[in-house]
Amino acid sequence: MSAAPRTVVGLDLGGTQVKGGFVLEGEDGKPDLDQTLSRVVAIDTNLDAGADDLLDRLAGFARELGSDGPLGLGVPGVFEEPGGRLLRSANLKALEGLDLGAELARRLDLPREHVCVDNDANVATYGEQWLGAGAGIQDLIMLTLGTGIGSGLVINGHLYKGPTGKAAEVGHMVVRSLPVNGTEDPYLRCGCGAYGCLERLASASAAIHRAQAAGLETDLGKLCGLARAQSGPERELLFEIGFDLGAGLLATTAALDVTCYVIGGGFGRSLDLLEPGIRAALAERDYGHAPPRLLPATLGASAGWIGAARMALDSLG
Amino acid sequence: MSAAPRTVVGLDLGGTQVKGGFVLEGEDGKPDLDQTLSRVVAIDTNLDAGADDLLDRLAGFARELGSDGPLGLGVPGVFEEPGGRLLRSANLKALEGLDLGAELARRLDLPREHVCVDNDANVATYGEQWLGAGAGIQDLIMLTLGTGIGSGLVINGHLYKGPTGKAAEVGHMVVRSLPVNGTEDPYLRCGCGAYGCLERLASASAAIHRAQAAGLETDLGKLCGLARAQSGPERELLFEIGFDLGAGLLATTAALDVTCYVIGGGFGRSLDLLEPGIRAALAERDYGHAPPRLLPATLGASAGWIGAARMALDSLG
Repeated sequence: MSAAPRTVVGLDLGGTQVKGGFVLEGEDGKPDLDQTLSRVVAIDTNLDAGADDLLDRLAGFARELGSDGPLGLGVPGVFEEPGGRLLRSANLKALEGLDLGAELARRLDLPREHVCVDNDANVATYGEQWLGAGAGIQDLIMLTLGTGIGSGLVINGHLYKGPTGKAAEVGHMVVRSLPVNGTEDPYLRCGCGAYGCLERLASASAAIHRAQAAGLETDLGKLCGLARAQSGPERELLFEIGFDLGAGLLATTAALDVTCYVIGGGFGRSLDLLEPGIRAALAERDYGHAPPRLLPATLGASAGWIGAARMALDSLG
Repeated sequence: MSAAPRTVVGLDLGGTQVKGGFVLEGEDGKPDLDQTLSRVVAIDTNLDAGADDLLDRLAGFARELGSDGPLGLGVPGVFEEPGGRLLRSANLKALEGLDLGAELARRLDLPREHVCVDNDANVATYGEQWLGAGAGIQDLIMLTLGTGIGSGLVINGHLYKGPTGKAAEVGHMVVRSLPVNGTEDPYLRCGCGAYGCLERLASASAAIHRAQAAGLETDLGKLCGLARAQSGPERELLFEIGFDLGAGLLATTAALDVTCYVIGGGFGRSLDLLEPGIRAALAERDYGHAPPRLLPATLGASAGWIGAARMALDSLG
């Protein structure tokens, strides 16, 4: 009765690199994780030759990884739901308008429903919730502090994407309201159009901007090293950034009663320095919530393809 | 085989009045709504004689309404989840710490699992989503603009309360951040402890406060009448209040991808005047969201007990 285990491939498409790996389906339908996590490989994204070329290379990469089962793909962008067409992607504009799942299914001769494409933040969240910091936790939000702030929401063990696929945009909680009679800070006008979004205050890019404005070290690794070594303006700045981050979490906690946050991304490695500020902001409100857990992400740059592979496994039902 | 249809009672406990009504279970397990909605009655809450007396009278009221099936109760307050003990209730302090479901089950000789107690905003939301403005809509948030701002969240047709029962507190989205180098407005310090919560800007109480500060009519009915009659400072104030409300919805839309808002409560009857401001605030962000529906609530003060009755019906599984 038992067919040979299939190879489920996960790909994480970024602006410069595509990371990928695979999970063996396992004879009992459960994934065999022994060979997972150790085989991460990457190719260059290289968009110069156009969308078709990139899609061909993605399909070739999946084949190299042994793909003969469902495939998962994470992409930075906003998707149309239902349907799955890529509506927008700031760093992969050539792919906008395409149904990436259909394109890859055709190239790999897979049933369309077994090619699962989702936002990069969602797949990373799913990865961390499966095998990373959030393993065994049924309700959480993951934030990725990078150029922007990506985020994904897990409710009852499942990714929640909302009726049109645009939920969990924690980076767009407004934490600095437009001054009523004051001067707008142009940096705080977010790419989304709104003013004072969390990602303009607490992403890695925002942290660099704030360090520069304060006349401090702008290499975040060095800045955090200084803050860890001694009290002073570096540690204070990271407290302030943490406080703003906490103000954003105050909103998501009130909206969703979040009990666990997983913090990833390059700047997320400074969670130890951000946590006092986050906790101080959350303590402003006394509404009977227990303080949420704040966990550093553990899968690093592999979270995306791992979550994409899990999404593909889910498609087997 | 078919037992006689049971009478499912819903009660909505407020600071001054208890409203109630019933739904007949119906022989096919579906509620018979013919006799519903027309039989709303109310008793005084009257807490002077203490919690036991109130609970006795609630049980008596349920019996008068013909209760012989499951019972639902809405209460303004924060509940412990799981468990259902009332943790806090600003207007019904005498009931704090009690397991109201167990108390009523004992008095009415009902199985504990068939007495369903929930936050007043949740039951009102469930009522509107069942038989009111949200009938047939599977994903929505309802806001009740009153002394504060109550809110409830429906996802996939079911109330979502979060892991510890404290989700959907839209009234506590922060829409005025603490001035970085400015003066705090003491009115904007919310009862929850945080600064600038939506309910300090767009509840009925906040609207009265803002009208007074602007030297305008403080009777909200008259204020809105003036705003409808002609352009001028009254209409502008309602636009501004709507804009703040929209800033709060910007947060919940980003967090949850909300496609429909139902607006209730006394001040919610001014949705026509608030809507331009709400729409202007939502238009700040361009993230691919279609503009959400904004629907006036239709069940008025009956939404609570109707939703409580539905919750009780649900307990039959």
